[in-house]
Amino acid sequence: MKDSLVFGVDVGGTSIKIGVFNLEGELLLNDEITTNVLENTIIKDIADFIINYIYDNKKTIIDITGIGLGLPGPVNDFGEVQKCVNLNWGVFNIEEEFKNIFINEYFEKFNKKVDRNEVFIKATNDANCAGLGENWKGSAKNFKNSVFITLGTGLGGAIIINEKIVNGNNGAAGEIGHIVVDYDEKELCSCGKTGCLEQKVSATGIVKIAKKLFEDNNKENNKDNNTENKLNNDLSAKKESLTAKDIFDAAKTGNEFANEVIEIYSKYLGIGLSHVATLVNPEAFIFGGGMSKAGELVYNRAIKYFDKYVFLPCKNVSFNLAELGNKAGMYGAAFYVLSCKDKK
Amino acid sequence: MKDSLVFGVDVGGTSIKIGVFNLEGELLLNDEITTNVLENTIIKDIADFIINYIYDNKKTIIDITGIGLGLPGPVNDFGEVQKCVNLNWGVFNIEEEFKNIFINEYFEKFNKKVDRNEVFIKATNDANCAGLGENWKGSAKNFKNSVFITLGTGLGGAIIINEKIVNGNNGAAGEIGHIVVDYDEKELCSCGKTGCLEQKVSATGIVKIAKKLFEDNNKENNKDNNTENKLNNDLSAKKESLTAKDIFDAAKTGNEFANEVIEIYSKYLGIGLSHVATLVNPEAFIFGGGMSKAGELVYNRAIKYFDKYVFLPCKNVSFNLAELGNKAGMYGAAFYVLSCKDKK
Repeated sequence: MKDSLVFGVDVGGTSIKIGVFNLEGELLLNDEITTNVLENTIIKDIADFIINYIYDNKKTIIDITGIGLGLPGPVNDFGEVQKCVNLNWGVFNIEEEFKNIFINEYFEKFNKKVDRNEVFIKATNDANCAGLGENWKGSAKNFKNSVFITLGTGLGGAIIINEKIVNGNNGAAGEIGHIVVDYDEKELCSCGKTGCLEQKVSATGIVKIAKKLFEDNNKENNKDNNTENKLNNDLSAKKESLTAKDIFDAAKTGNEFANEVIEIYSKYLGIGLSHVATLVNPEAFIFGGGMSKAGELVYNRAIKYFDKYVFLPCKNVSFNLAELGNKAGMYGAAFYVLSCKDKK
Repeated sequence: MKDSLVFGVDVGGTSIKIGVFNLEGELLLNDEITTNVLENTIIKDIADFIINYIYDNKKTIIDITGIGLGLPGPVNDFGEVQKCVNLNWGVFNIEEEFKNIFINEYFEKFNKKVDRNEVFIKATNDANCAGLGENWKGSAKNFKNSVFITLGTGLGGAIIINEKIVNGNNGAAGEIGHIVVDYDEKELCSCGKTGCLEQKVSATGIVKIAKKLFEDNNKENNKDNNTENKLNNDLSAKKESLTAKDIFDAAKTGNEFANEVIEIYSKYLGIGLSHVATLVNPEAFIFGGGMSKAGELVYNRAIKYFDKYVFLPCKNVSFNLAELGNKAGMYGAAFYVLSCKDKK
């Protein structure tokens, strides 16, 4: 057991990150392979990587404690993926399928048959993995109850209670981005309904907030010329190609309009976080994803609204930046399979 | 162990319900004593009841597997109550205090000293107990993940994941009634903030909705006489003394105004439930409390809004009425202490 390995695999739409860990959670090696969606060799490519690694390191299947997979879509407790749009996958049992392919590939390499129960594989959602990774070795490691929030292109979440992920009935729990916050929204969210938090709190959401504010200010402008100076020329000129980065950059230089946009964004984020805290009463929020780097500008402002809207006995929550960056998913996938092994 | 007993105690502001169970969860006896808030003999009264029961039944401390307490306020995992306003209690460790008093009273009755670790007592919030009770022996008994909702004077909730309560960092999780749903509300909720779901979805909330609709219709009325016929004479006359029951009774007879009020109430309930389902993805909602008896009128309408606002992968939730009535708390308190014993 001393030299046993655990593999943490974070499967994304363009690349697959693979981490090799010892049982203490020390990262021995990490690598990245391309996600071959077109030829659908994703599972085989992962299996081959692992098999080649153990072969090259003069190890065998008995040295693998487990393989954890983080996938971009819901996975239920039985290992069934519901649909991974980015991978072009339908509904099937990824754990069983992985075993089939792994056993085949292992035979090819070692010329030895592996028994099904010698391969211990567990899969869960990638946001869950990132949350578990931070909980294991990142900025949530001192908390038993934490909620991980990804602020990026979208808005993801993972709820961890007593160091276990809340996965829900079909692996779809923790979807903070799809809480409804705007009951009157007409535009569709990517999820198919309207008024989701992600339609406000995301890279595209903040641009939409800015465009709406432009329009509102322009209307207002016909009545009142004072608002003219709010429309910073730089941003106004960019109107069509405006990005989240433009807004944050402008806000940092004190641009009033950009700051107003971020204020609206932060209000919605604060509301969403207040819902989460009122329902699960965590010790900490951990913020990851590209937009969390705007730290002070984003979540520090959200705290004001969080404090206003959260149930008072749940107010005492620590706000933290994630520490593991894009390695969090690998860590969490490894931790997940280890924690499932404990339960067996 | 065969004849071992477990006590489930549901402490309310006016009465304390005590159930005596065997380890299979069969209710052997249930009784009710008055909550003596004035003289603060609550703990002693419960201890005496239990001690007298075992004395009369020729049993001793070794026949008690555990004592579970459900309390009207948050209790953290270490047994500290934060504040039970209805009992006039501050912040203290109820489990330790109960042991002290129990050991004293036991000595008085049996003239025998009991060791502290012979008394196994666990306390949690009363809404959690009701949820756990339904999960153990009521309408949630076939579900691993369920959320219990009390529709009554207030709006309470309990989240159960893998048959365990989500208690949160300081015992305040599951407070669905204090999710913010009206960002612009000016009036204070009993919890000290504004815009809570409970300000809409509760016996007092629905009356407020009705009064606001009266006013809005009256304003509208100055412009448009057609709304006059919406204001049913019966309800209009009662305006000052209007109760939730009046509204439900009127709605049952087809009163248009009352139905409009219930539609607004149901919309907010649907929104709140959609938040819960999107975050924890349960299999079932269980509705208890006085207003759940209006069943079809209340939660069946809420389903329409729930379906509109919930994240699609979390939509498939079964809506059920609670089965154990006001015994749910006793059952759940007994189950809670048993489940904590398992973990020891």
